[in-house]
Amino acid sequence: MKKKTVYLRDIVDYLESDLVAVYGEVGNVYVDNISDEVNINSKSLDWINSTKQSKQRIAEDSRAVVILADRDVVYTNALRAQKKVLLIVENPRKVLSKIISAFYIENKVSFIHPSAIIDAGAKIDSTAYIEAGCVIGKAVIGKYTYIKANVVIEDDVIIGDHCVIQAGGVIGTDGLGCNRESDGMLVKFPHLGGVVIGNYVEIGANCQIARGALSDTIISDGCKINGLCFIAHNCHIGKNVWITGDTMLAGSVHVEDNVTIFSKVIVREQRHIGKNATIGMGAVVTKDVPAGETWVGNPARKLEK
Amino acid sequence: MKKKTVYLRDIVDYLESDLVAVYGEVGNVYVDNISDEVNINSKSLDWINSTKQSKQRIAEDSRAVVILADRDVVYTNALRAQKKVLLIVENPRKVLSKIISAFYIENKVSFIHPSAIIDAGAKIDSTAYIEAGCVIGKAVIGKYTYIKANVVIEDDVIIGDHCVIQAGGVIGTDGLGCNRESDGMLVKFPHLGGVVIGNYVEIGANCQIARGALSDTIISDGCKINGLCFIAHNCHIGKNVWITGDTMLAGSVHVEDNVTIFSKVIVREQRHIGKNATIGMGAVVTKDVPAGETWVGNPARKLEK
Amino acid sequence: MKKKTVYLRDIVDYLESDLVAVYGEVGNVYVDNISDEVNINSKSLDWINSTKQSKQRIAEDSRAVVILADRDVVYTNALRAQKKVLLIVENPRKVLSKIISAFYIENKVSFIHPSAIIDAGAKIDSTAYIEAGCVIGKAVIGKYTYIKANVVIEDDVIIGDHCVIQAGGVIGTDGLGCNRESDGMLVKFPHLGGVVIGNYVEIGANCQIARGALSDTIISDGCKINGLCFIAHNCHIGKNVWITGDTMLAGSVHVEDNVTIFSKVIVREQRHIGKNATIGMGAVVTKDVPAGETWVGNPARKLEK
Repeated sequence: MKKKTVYLRDIVDYLESDLVAVYGEVGNVYVDNISDEVNINSKSLDWINSTKQSKQRIAEDSRAVVILADRDVVYTNALRAQKKVLLIVENPRKVLSKIISAFYIENKVSFIHPSAIIDAGAKIDSTAYIEAGCVIGKAVIGKYTYIKANVVIEDDVIIGDHCVIQAGGVIGTDGLGCNRESDGMLVKFPHLGGVVIGNYVEIGANCQIARGALSDTIISDGCKINGLCFIAHNCHIGKNVWITGDTMLAGSVHVEDNVTIFSKVIVREQRHIGKNATIGMGAVVTKDVPAGETWVGNPARKLEK
Repeated sequence: MKKKTVYLRDIVDYLESDLVAVYGEVGNVYVDNISDEVNINSKSLDWINSTKQSKQRIAEDSRAVVILADRDVVYTNALRAQKKVLLIVENPRKVLSKIISAFYIENKVSFIHPSAIIDAGAKIDSTAYIEAGCVIGKAVIGKYTYIKANVVIEDDVIIGDHCVIQAGGVIGTDGLGCNRESDGMLVKFPHLGGVVIGNYVEIGANCQIARGALSDTIISDGCKINGLCFIAHNCHIGKNVWITGDTMLAGSVHVEDNVTIFSKVIVREQRHIGKNATIGMGAVVTKDVPAGETWVGNPARKLEK
Repeated sequence: MKKKTVYLRDIVDYLESDLVAVYGEVGNVYVDNISDEVNINSKSLDWINSTKQSKQRIAEDSRAVVILADRDVVYTNALRAQKKVLLIVENPRKVLSKIISAFYIENKVSFIHPSAIIDAGAKIDSTAYIEAGCVIGKAVIGKYTYIKANVVIEDDVIIGDHCVIQAGGVIGTDGLGCNRESDGMLVKFPHLGGVVIGNYVEIGANCQIARGALSDTIISDGCKINGLCFIAHNCHIGKNVWITGDTMLAGSVHVEDNVTIFSKVIVREQRHIGKNATIGMGAVVTKDVPAGETWVGNPARKLEK
């Protein structure tokens, strides 16, 4: 449970056009916590996910005074009698998310922790936030980007604005493409490329994003890549791609916009994942995936609905 | 081979009720190493795993003077003639483990390495041991807990007593649940929960344990989670759960007591793994697993014996 | 694109016996960049992979003056008229790799970053290079070995010459073999072994290499192990084994020389992978794999050609 007193009038002012309607008396009503279902109390900001059954009953039974819900919930006499305040929005989960970000998450003021080791050739925007133990080479870090503890960012990495790199990530490590000689010896191909990450990208904890061989590895605006993922050399990831964790894209994989790749997937090198496609968790993708399709399994095949 | 001279009488005193019987002369006999089979010498503490065939013969052929074995081995004339000392216990592997821990593993004296960066709001027990390069937020660390090098522990994490967090782990990172807008944009749900870890828990190297969304992620007493695992937001793991490495539990997975999950498993979000169940390595678990069953494969199915 | 002016005569001198033939005037010709296909310009060192179709046409259409190719490309009038210089070698990709390493990759001069925390008992060769944030125990590091940022190397680890440990790796962490007691409690077997890594080995970012139980975990000369791999206790890996990323070898796996294991593979404990075998990506290997065979799938089976 996250506790902090916030006056409802401030929330109402902040939400503006997100609000479809407000029922009940806002007056001096305040909430002092955001909590899971089990711990809701009279001062919680309660909310009802649109996907739930019996939303009206949930609202009427809620222990909280302030309730965020969609249009399916109406301000009945039962709610009025309890002096509840009902905030109606299109998407309660999304609006809750906005409220939490605005009122319950501490905003980081730009800062570089003195223990971070930063190359003299790095270009770090004055609004960026760099936590303890980071090691940053000749890289570029954009506005309001937040690099968490013990992250390593190597030379030739460009990270855009409003990004988050979670703790322990390594951005710009060498790929490891090899030639095997006739005597078995492995000769590594040297990697001269970099990594270019767009704006509003998040990279999870302990990820590895490899640099390109002769050109760059690219992650476009709005991608969200959860922890322990491995994005290999020369991958090219379009906008708003969501990867939910522990997935590997081998070298030169091309992923188009708005793709969703669930957890623990491996995609073979040089494969192409078309726009809006979905890859199920644990899939082993050996072929190109056409736009809009869903593929699952080992080896992955199209999922027929 | 780990070398250190230890008098057998000290081992005998330490084991107490673990000893079923001692044959031969303890006197001033000592051992000076613990070694694998190939390198056993006269001064090794040799041991015979209960699962082996021909245990009597192994004892009689051993190059070591001191032998740890179960009741199946008897003190024959052959052993007496060689002046061997035979320690009989119920479970030699377990007792060897106790001997190593007591006599061959260096005990850490409580210590915080000066390079560790610790938030002023952290509460660290005076008996804890924190290695170099750790970054610790507003967290609680219990008695005799050992945090190895370059671990990151974020705010709102509570770790109990006698735990070990292996190097490079990240505890309390954000989950990355998203809503996808109609235009494809991903909006991250902010995470306000924490992580609560019980007593006698071990977390392997480079793991990621994510904080909960509105309530906490919970790992109960006695769990052993090997390296490169990813425990996502709001998982609830019961007591004595063993995860052998590189496994991911997606969001809100519930695992009951005494479950064993082998390596490189993925469990889908909100699934439930019943008490004493076993999940085979590489399994892709998309359904609830009933108590006591063994599931394997992609997608995972019950293994019929 | 990596830019640096290099005179062609210096490259020709360096390559010596790798050169089959040189056509055109070397004179004062120079190149000033290595680039991917899209960005080739007149000053690039262009190269034509032996696996390509229409190599002659590619050479004749290249925007670059200097072209590296195999014997299939001949010095036609078309090339002569353009005053191109053609370097003929057996394996252009391999020779390009040599040129990049010699002329375009900065050589690290031996150095230990002052932020690295190194145990007084460590033995580090004076030619080694240790980046910022590393934590090194009582370990041995060989000649010209390069340890990148935030790596943790624990006690009892020996790393040979000319190795690279990419950022964030943990070498020598405890394995986590357990006994489950009758009441469900897990008792960890203590690990007394170390890790021995040969020469010319590369270990990728955020890998975990576990120490052995009673003897050592061994990685032999010339192995290349990409990022996020987990090599468990007592694995014994032969020479020139290539693991392309995010793969786990469970305890006591034995891999013979020249094996190739693709990404996101799990190999069951105590299994044996024979010489020159290949394991396909995403394979779940539960049985021994004979020499020279290719296995794929979950569970993995021999791939019939």
